[in-house]
Amino acid sequence: MFDSRIFVEKSLDEIKARVKDERVASACSGGVDSTTCTALVHSAIGKKLLAVFIDDGLRREGEPEFVVNTLKNLGIKVRYVDAKKEFFETLKGKTDAEEKRKAFREKFYSKLGEIIKQENARFLVQGTIAADIKETVQGIKTQHNVLEQIGIDPKIYGYEIIEPLKELYKPEVRMVARELRLPAEVSERMPFPGPALSIRVLGEVTSEKIEILKKATKIVEEETKDLDAFQRFAVLHSDKATGMKGGKRVYGNIITVRVVESKDAITAKAMQVPYEKLDKISKRITGEIPSVVRCLVDVTDKPPATIEFE
Amino acid sequence: MFDSRIFVEKSLDEIKARVKDERVASACSGGVDSTTCTALVHSAIGKKLLAVFIDDGLRREGEPEFVVNTLKNLGIKVRYVDAKKEFFETLKGKTDAEEKRKAFREKFYSKLGEIIKQENARFLVQGTIAADIKETVQGIKTQHNVLEQIGIDPKIYGYEIIEPLKELYKPEVRMVARELRLPAEVSERMPFPGPALSIRVLGEVTSEKIEILKKATKIVEEETKDLDAFQRFAVLHSDKATGMKGGKRVYGNIITVRVVESKDAITAKAMQVPYEKLDKISKRITGEIPSVVRCLVDVTDKPPATIEFE
Repeated sequence: MFDSRIFVEKSLDEIKARVKDERVASACSGGVDSTTCTALVHSAIGKKLLAVFIDDGLRREGEPEFVVNTLKNLGIKVRYVDAKKEFFETLKGKTDAEEKRKAFREKFYSKLGEIIKQENARFLVQGTIAADIKETVQGIKTQHNVLEQIGIDPKIYGYEIIEPLKELYKPEVRMVARELRLPAEVSERMPFPGPALSIRVLGEVTSEKIEILKKATKIVEEETKDLDAFQRFAVLHSDKATGMKGGKRVYGNIITVRVVESKDAITAKAMQVPYEKLDKISKRITGEIPSVVRCLVDVTDKPPATIEFE
Repeated sequence: MFDSRIFVEKSLDEIKARVKDERVASACSGGVDSTTCTALVHSAIGKKLLAVFIDDGLRREGEPEFVVNTLKNLGIKVRYVDAKKEFFETLKGKTDAEEKRKAFREKFYSKLGEIIKQENARFLVQGTIAADIKETVQGIKTQHNVLEQIGIDPKIYGYEIIEPLKELYKPEVRMVARELRLPAEVSERMPFPGPALSIRVLGEVTSEKIEILKKATKIVEEETKDLDAFQRFAVLHSDKATGMKGGKRVYGNIITVRVVESKDAITAKAMQVPYEKLDKISKRITGEIPSVVRCLVDVTDKPPATIEFE
């Protein structure tokens, strides 16, 4: 049985012993994993830690502000880095799921490398968890935060890595977050992928598509917030479909709604969302987003699908 | 109130008067509209009629055989034309919905023109109904069988057109079919688009994609046959998505299931298919078709979507 108190105490000792007097940076996206390990390391070494939030332009509406404020409220020093243009540039023209994930990872680590050098940090903290490693090593997908386990030496980026949560699964991470008394908005936060909305725009990512997806994501999150789901999100297709708006034929976008039940993301079940709710979501998405004509719902479990589409 | 007996009697007189001793060809896809008007014209002029079934390679599993046998059983002369290669050739590289419909129509009429010339026919019978004309004229979509109403003179193809059903809507066509004592497989047949499966493969059509879609279509039709739906079908996306098969990451196809309630196809409601059924469909589609990893369900009404995706 996992004991979060013992885990935290042991981790604090290990982190102090390893870091000594060096400076440490923590890549924090605002998700439960990265925020929990940022808070954990902060408990261990205090002001020697700088949290870094890289704004890749791929976060949900209001998310950059939320992350920066949450960290500040925890008393953690935080640096906001605007890298939106660079990420859109790097994703331009890439349509294959795995190619997109790799391009994201490459840009993420090179950008982080810049910041770490500027800040003169020796260590990088990241919120890698056991499921990330398992899936990357098994070839399920390329997690953006898994390096050493697949034979990439992080020293090529100019730093050493600290991964305090790498042996934990999601439910244990949440226990640690609660142990650290993080706000429920963090400890109970819905999982969100590292490459963010880039893997929920099928095919090529553009800033215009991300804007459409942000709106759809907000609607899906609002309308499903009372469901006991593991993840609830929207996906924008690259395919288009015909529809009728204002009595005229249009050729517009397709949004898929994905709501799954899961404990650890290793397997998942497509949730049977009440049709009344789906009808409302469909009407809001096609009504509030001019380019969208069609709303679909994913009914596939994992396996044979994955939770995310890419 | 529409009286199918009066309609049939009046139509028989008009057709006889117009055709006189000329030879007539009827383009029959096997759908309720084209089969009903083929049977109607056959009642009027008997052996002067030749039904033509053009096999475009885009029909459902077993459909070419079904259509030819149905016509033969009604005592109607029928010619089967294998044009599969030509249609795939004409659709090659075309990704836009409207461009695909137009390419289909162009090939359909030029092929039909060839046959009519060979057969020395003066008239072509086709099953255009009021909804086809309305939608084409209003710019909703290009129906493959509407020419004169949008200013195309069919004489450029070398024949005159007879459209006995052009003022009827679908429920009235079914009444005519019953009046003519057509088998229920015809009179109650689910509507199926003229350009067939080509508009249910989003983006470019290939024979490989049509093969995948045929299998998915068969599964959806089998598993939803007890639902009181207007149309029940599958769509193959051009977008791909990740999945897991045999414990490994795969990047596979996406199928959408579309089941709608409607009276006349002018408006439609997405049917609330029981989740138990959707789960079975999803498991069969991803289990029986190796390349498919994900199954979605369309929950959008018409408007704002159309029934078909293209």
